[in-house]
Amino acid sequence: MQTILIIGTGKSSVYLIEHLIQTTATKNRKIILADISEEIAAQKSQGNPYVESKAIKLGDRNNRHLIIKTADVVISMLPAFLHPVIAKDCLELGKHFFTASYESEEMRELSDEIKEKGLLFLNECGLDPGIDHMSAMRIIDEEKAAGHKILGFKSYTGGVLTPECEDNPWKYKFTWNPRNVVLAGQGVSRFIRNGRYKYIPYHMLFRRLETISFDEVGDFDGYPNRDSLIYRQIYGLEEIPTLLRGTLRRAGFCQSWDVFVQLGLTDDSFKMDLPEGFTARMFVNSFLPYHEEKSVESKIKELLPWVTDEIIGKITWLGLLDDIELPIRKGSPASILQVILEDRWALKPEDKDMIVMQHLFEIQTDKGIKKITSSLVCKGKNQIYTAMAKTVGLPLAIAVDLFLDGKIKARGLHIPITPEFYLPILKSLEEENIIFQDKITSG
Amino acid sequence: MQTILIIGTGKSSVYLIEHLIQTTATKNRKIILADISEEIAAQKSQGNPYVESKAIKLGDRNNRHLIIKTADVVISMLPAFLHPVIAKDCLELGKHFFTASYESEEMRELSDEIKEKGLLFLNECGLDPGIDHMSAMRIIDEEKAAGHKILGFKSYTGGVLTPECEDNPWKYKFTWNPRNVVLAGQGVSRFIRNGRYKYIPYHMLFRRLETISFDEVGDFDGYPNRDSLIYRQIYGLEEIPTLLRGTLRRAGFCQSWDVFVQLGLTDDSFKMDLPEGFTARMFVNSFLPYHEEKSVESKIKELLPWVTDEIIGKITWLGLLDDIELPIRKGSPASILQVILEDRWALKPEDKDMIVMQHLFEIQTDKGIKKITSSLVCKGKNQIYTAMAKTVGLPLAIAVDLFLDGKIKARGLHIPITPEFYLPILKSLEEENIIFQDKITSG
Repeated sequence: MQTILIIGTGKSSVYLIEHLIQTTATKNRKIILADISEEIAAQKSQGNPYVESKAIKLGDRNNRHLIIKTADVVISMLPAFLHPVIAKDCLELGKHFFTASYESEEMRELSDEIKEKGLLFLNECGLDPGIDHMSAMRIIDEEKAAGHKILGFKSYTGGVLTPECEDNPWKYKFTWNPRNVVLAGQGVSRFIRNGRYKYIPYHMLFRRLETISFDEVGDFDGYPNRDSLIYRQIYGLEEIPTLLRGTLRRAGFCQSWDVFVQLGLTDDSFKMDLPEGFTARMFVNSFLPYHEEKSVESKIKELLPWVTDEIIGKITWLGLLDDIELPIRKGSPASILQVILEDRWALKPEDKDMIVMQHLFEIQTDKGIKKITSSLVCKGKNQIYTAMAKTVGLPLAIAVDLFLDGKIKARGLHIPITPEFYLPILKSLEEENIIFQDKITSG
Repeated sequence: MQTILIIGTGKSSVYLIEHLIQTTATKNRKIILADISEEIAAQKSQGNPYVESKAIKLGDRNNRHLIIKTADVVISMLPAFLHPVIAKDCLELGKHFFTASYESEEMRELSDEIKEKGLLFLNECGLDPGIDHMSAMRIIDEEKAAGHKILGFKSYTGGVLTPECEDNPWKYKFTWNPRNVVLAGQGVSRFIRNGRYKYIPYHMLFRRLETISFDEVGDFDGYPNRDSLIYRQIYGLEEIPTLLRGTLRRAGFCQSWDVFVQLGLTDDSFKMDLPEGFTARMFVNSFLPYHEEKSVESKIKELLPWVTDEIIGKITWLGLLDDIELPIRKGSPASILQVILEDRWALKPEDKDMIVMQHLFEIQTDKGIKKITSSLVCKGKNQIYTAMAKTVGLPLAIAVDLFLDGKIKARGLHIPITPEFYLPILKSLEEENIIFQDKITSG
């Protein structure tokens, strides 16, 4: 009997768990669900006789080892900074290890030892990173095999709302970690365009946009995200003249969001400690020049001349220009903004999330330039069966299933960028209706 | 015989050393000059029989103790991060300790012990911090004593060129640490204006200017600098509605410098590793959107519509738009920019620096509102006897002299904000021609 241990059984684990539960009986597998809250773990076990739920004390090495010992394969759905702890346990106890998170430097330091012990540690096998890698590498490898040269590769992903749920002026609500959304894009974004290195500081990011269109769900703003340059090596595209990875938001979102960036409301570098009675309007005003008479609205427009009445309307809708007391007065501007947004951008019970991903390739063939636009749209069913949970959890579940079936032979530290991983995983994802639509134009 | 140990005898110690040397014979004092380079220490001793020079190994505790043991008073002119090391030695060995740098958190942790041992540790006794505190506190205490209420206090300082040396389009050269100049203003600036908290993110700083005028030397751009709010407590102005500390640059400088800030050229948060043959123009272009045909100049103007031909001219003058290879290719954008600027903004042998400082007070008296503008202009003689070395070194030298004469009785951890410090120090500074000119208007 094979035992799968899933650590972290919160919201985003629902598809992962259900997919693996399906085959417990037929494949003679046992699943252990471990969470810091046993209640949360137990909720997900669905009374299945092959599933056991446990509380895990993450700070207690003995407790972790006791639980991990009983498994063959460990999947960590914990916050990324906790992965190295579990990974080291797995290494010590000789267990295979899977996550949907970025391969960290700490993980790389374990690389030799993982290989020596004949274990597989697979990271970046979720949505982004995960499905993005796999779907891109399938095209890259195919085109290379045909003797073609890849001139450009841009890849955008976004976690948004389904169009029918875009019922506020921002056409946005938090469908995943609000803090990550508020801080998105901080640092310097780096990419390469027609052989030219490009660097965009955070305060310029939300005006360096590209429109990305989906037949089914319309237009989105795409902005470059973090360091795209490192993907030249990861994707085997060392000589590629254009490479960019980016993030998608509904068209129009970025220009309005840029007001917050420009004013400094998304700053997370210092803590404010505001006096009692400080209102949302005073909060915004504290980032504007002093003037005896001018209103906050007119000062915003003066400082940022591109701000339209429509944008002011969006900010007003959030309550940011109201004289209502701030829900919190201590914290970074970003964390104060986040609390305000969490209230206004909360999902309603019937709201559905949506994942949009698009790869844009420019390829030199012997007949000329070929363009491939490969698009994925995945809609959530409700607030439990979300598109985010599906696209993050299923690749991981499928990878573990394939591995336990003996269909993945790789050992060592990996991300799913070789055919052994991406071909069967993408095939299984298609069966779950996670399907890329390709448009090809030659010219 | 009293022994003064000066650690760090570089460029900025010249006035400090000479002032203390003057009275060695009459006051029966010995001076030990210690530097990591004995040569540099020896150069400053002027063959004076009361002065000894020594090499000091800062990383070697025994060596430090051997040297510090022989002193009564220790002055650290080392980079600020090294002060705590010397301060802890002084505490252990029972020596008084003086610096011109900001009082650090690490220093504050020693506070109780300093007092218990009956020692004086005096920090912030240079120019800024130093002369700014003392000259401001003299006015604040006088006005408070007269029963007046201080409504507003703004204080600006700058290290610039004398007007006759402003022979480049920027009217600027590096008269002190270039790295500090390139990074100046990073982080969030905080102040209070008419009772309103104000926060300015770095990318907005160089457009939130105030013109500060000196009768003698003309107009300057003033911009808010770091956290002014903490000075409410330090200056005993807890209830003041307006408090701002800022930095001065020659009028026009900030708008042009803002181009670098906007593009991201002053970013110090990531390292570039640029290919061979990368030119200054390519460096600038890497922060601009890609375009097949448009020039770097036109792309700057498009991205930043307020950029004039004059500003482009200034950037051109720096060589930043030339197709000449970068002097360094590895490092943060800020450090690459710094190397380019160091070449173009280098002082000529005959160039002179200048310190400008201005306090602007708004005071409620029983007769109405009184305004005090208190200005200091201090010009350097040449590149050795600089205004910077004078205004940083003399307050420190005077403080140590007064202390050894028994005229300062305070013990414990201090900055020079009480009359015991500022009255005699400001008096001695006036004898050295460091004099504030006050303009008072009542209305």
